[in-house]
Amino acid sequence: MPEFFNAIAPDAAFAALKSRLADLRGGDGAIAADAETVAVADAIGRVAAADVLSPEDLPSFTRSTMDGYSVRARDTFGATEGLPAYLDVVGEAPMGQAASVQVGAGQAAVAYTGGPLAQNADAVVQVERTQPLGDGAIEVLRAVAPGENAVQVGEDVRKGDAATRRGAMLRAQDIGALAALGATSVSVMRRPRVGIVSTGDELVPPDAVPAAGQVRDINTYTIAALTAQAGGVPVVMGIIPDDFDAQRQAAAQALSECDMLVFSAGSSVSSRDMTAAVIDSLGPPGVFVHGIAVKPGKPTIVGIAQGKPCIGLPGNPVSAMVVFDLVARPAIYLLAGAARAPRPPTAQATLTRDIASAAGREDYIPVALREDEGGALTAEPLFGKSNLIFTLARADGIVKIPMDAGGIYAGEAVDVRLFAQ
Amino acid sequence: MPEFFNAIAPDAAFAALKSRLADLRGGDGAIAADAETVAVADAIGRVAAADVLSPEDLPSFTRSTMDGYSVRARDTFGATEGLPAYLDVVGEAPMGQAASVQVGAGQAAVAYTGGPLAQNADAVVQVERTQPLGDGAIEVLRAVAPGENAVQVGEDVRKGDAATRRGAMLRAQDIGALAALGATSVSVMRRPRVGIVSTGDELVPPDAVPAAGQVRDINTYTIAALTAQAGGVPVVMGIIPDDFDAQRQAAAQALSECDMLVFSAGSSVSSRDMTAAVIDSLGPPGVFVHGIAVKPGKPTIVGIAQGKPCIGLPGNPVSAMVVFDLVARPAIYLLAGAARAPRPPTAQATLTRDIASAAGREDYIPVALREDEGGALTAEPLFGKSNLIFTLARADGIVKIPMDAGGIYAGEAVDVRLFAQ
Repeated sequence: MPEFFNAIAPDAAFAALKSRLADLRGGDGAIAADAETVAVADAIGRVAAADVLSPEDLPSFTRSTMDGYSVRARDTFGATEGLPAYLDVVGEAPMGQAASVQVGAGQAAVAYTGGPLAQNADAVVQVERTQPLGDGAIEVLRAVAPGENAVQVGEDVRKGDAATRRGAMLRAQDIGALAALGATSVSVMRRPRVGIVSTGDELVPPDAVPAAGQVRDINTYTIAALTAQAGGVPVVMGIIPDDFDAQRQAAAQALSECDMLVFSAGSSVSSRDMTAAVIDSLGPPGVFVHGIAVKPGKPTIVGIAQGKPCIGLPGNPVSAMVVFDLVARPAIYLLAGAARAPRPPTAQATLTRDIASAAGREDYIPVALREDEGGALTAEPLFGKSNLIFTLARADGIVKIPMDAGGIYAGEAVDVRLFAQ
Repeated sequence: MPEFFNAIAPDAAFAALKSRLADLRGGDGAIAADAETVAVADAIGRVAAADVLSPEDLPSFTRSTMDGYSVRARDTFGATEGLPAYLDVVGEAPMGQAASVQVGAGQAAVAYTGGPLAQNADAVVQVERTQPLGDGAIEVLRAVAPGENAVQVGEDVRKGDAATRRGAMLRAQDIGALAALGATSVSVMRRPRVGIVSTGDELVPPDAVPAAGQVRDINTYTIAALTAQAGGVPVVMGIIPDDFDAQRQAAAQALSECDMLVFSAGSSVSSRDMTAAVIDSLGPPGVFVHGIAVKPGKPTIVGIAQGKPCIGLPGNPVSAMVVFDLVARPAIYLLAGAARAPRPPTAQATLTRDIASAAGREDYIPVALREDEGGALTAEPLFGKSNLIFTLARADGIVKIPMDAGGIYAGEAVDVRLFAQ
């Protein structure tokens, strides 16, 4: 029974998965063959499946950035409060229309923020820099340079420039930029489907009353939530007993429907730990990582079957969440074709108590944050056992102790990885 | 026309909204009267509408945290590799059942990770600390203390303790914790509905081909995306021309359907800027903030009508996003009853170029991040005009220059507020 696995660094575990997927699938390992088209308004958080080139210059006409008067800049040269320039106001260039008014020497036309300049005008004088004379003329109290207070044609984006790149995760401003270019739909990567297989003879569903020795399934729910937060579609396979044939059947079915499998529990090396054997039975190459140098989370499995990632998470809820973040989350972004996973949110805090660690492994310690009146944060380590879900429920984030560190002392500054909300 | 507003600090603008809402609505200003019940699996990111108390102790039985043997700890006292304790293995306590086996003096029973201990046992010896003798007996090579390698009844959560607090935004582990307690549904705050009124004679929808002088509506799309990211439901009212009656009618309708209004454009003080007058026409108190000390984003309006927040954003896309983040985003979390808005994700980076700023206002500068091989980040300021949406599309985040700073120098460390993905 005590057959130990060789633990490798968490980074190396994901790197091995990434490189094998790239070898198998070519390119970046994405599922881009299944790109789908969605309305731009629904594309927030999705990954662009192709470059989008701008079909036009934006803006398409020279726009004023101020309320004031469009002018020929040269007519204002030398103007000061003491020696203003005098211009005749010959009309206005209304919003939303081509300007019909035109300015000649010594002339100005009313201009509005976002509106066009008068014909022949090349700059705008802010209204605050003018003085009305009451007879349809104005004094200009400061000179403007050609182009001043105006956005030029193509200054926002030029025709043919990339508005969005393949692999970009679309944010609010990207949605706005696509709308600005007239795109109403956009090609995005299909969301990866992640099959979740929760194993254990002791597990019952949340709506059951556990008999003695039974516990409710937790990990299906946390893993499904984390999958959705990473942009994946959780496909829940239910609770499977500690029986090889039952697990193999559930996993084979999940693999046929999904782009990736996540197993909860059964990832260690005892006789009841069947995840590795199940993955190996689904097709080559099977398991290539068994054990990562992390606490909690050492009994972790990474493999590939039928070209799809198969990840075995430890059954302890804290371990499962730590390992999901280290291996499964980046795998979902990889499958989705994201050029890179988003940076997890972090906060800087001062540690309140020493945390010891063994060199040669990464340690992850849940912490509760407190904010003092000045906004400074302290991080209180929560030294709960890794099988207590409420340790995480009470925590605001998690602190990593790097592989080569023996610990962190109270008073040191730490980066806290915040849980997604 | 040049009637200037008195700009107040962005924090003060939101604080004024919060305090007036609390006065009007009582309590925390939330819309909690409209709590709704959702399946626990669908509750990720929602705000709990009530405390959830644990109906039971968790775990409900003492669980082993290791594969090994459950024992009476006293029978191992003094055991070492040189002088092991000898115990007879009298059976096993299988997973998922009450233990029928019981241990007496000098006896042990097989225990599994997550499974029960044998009756009368009070600790577990890891299998790695034992040696089988082949005749159904084992050597125990290290003593265990009472309770060692076991989770006690109620150690995760005690009956009556709060599993989730009203106002908490539910994260993956909270979903898991609720599942662990047998909750299949949970009472959460209704998502606030945010009416979006985009104004301007020059605007056309994204699917239109703009005539000369026209531009496509951008802000409806960015504001809707930002609203959804903050947990609100965007309600798009469409493009409304620069006409008081049309705007008032659209706003009144939005107010009757929504919990909050956001106007895009029309927030300055020229004759075409009608947002303030429209809000004032919808009911007292109307506008109480006009102008905040921020660049870009000075022409910002904050008011309340019919008990609901009404926020006027500047029309420039960059300004609109900056002000949304400062005022509208926290307002949505406030309405939703969140105990606090989630911390925006940030990253630390080294600034590559000087940024100048005027004291007495907050400056927000979009930046592009670059990561060197060691993972260190630099932030390159993008000094685009605030009416260029592609300035934001090219940026990874935004750097704030505080009110009292005259600028930040190249080489200084800055906190970059990352855009949500």
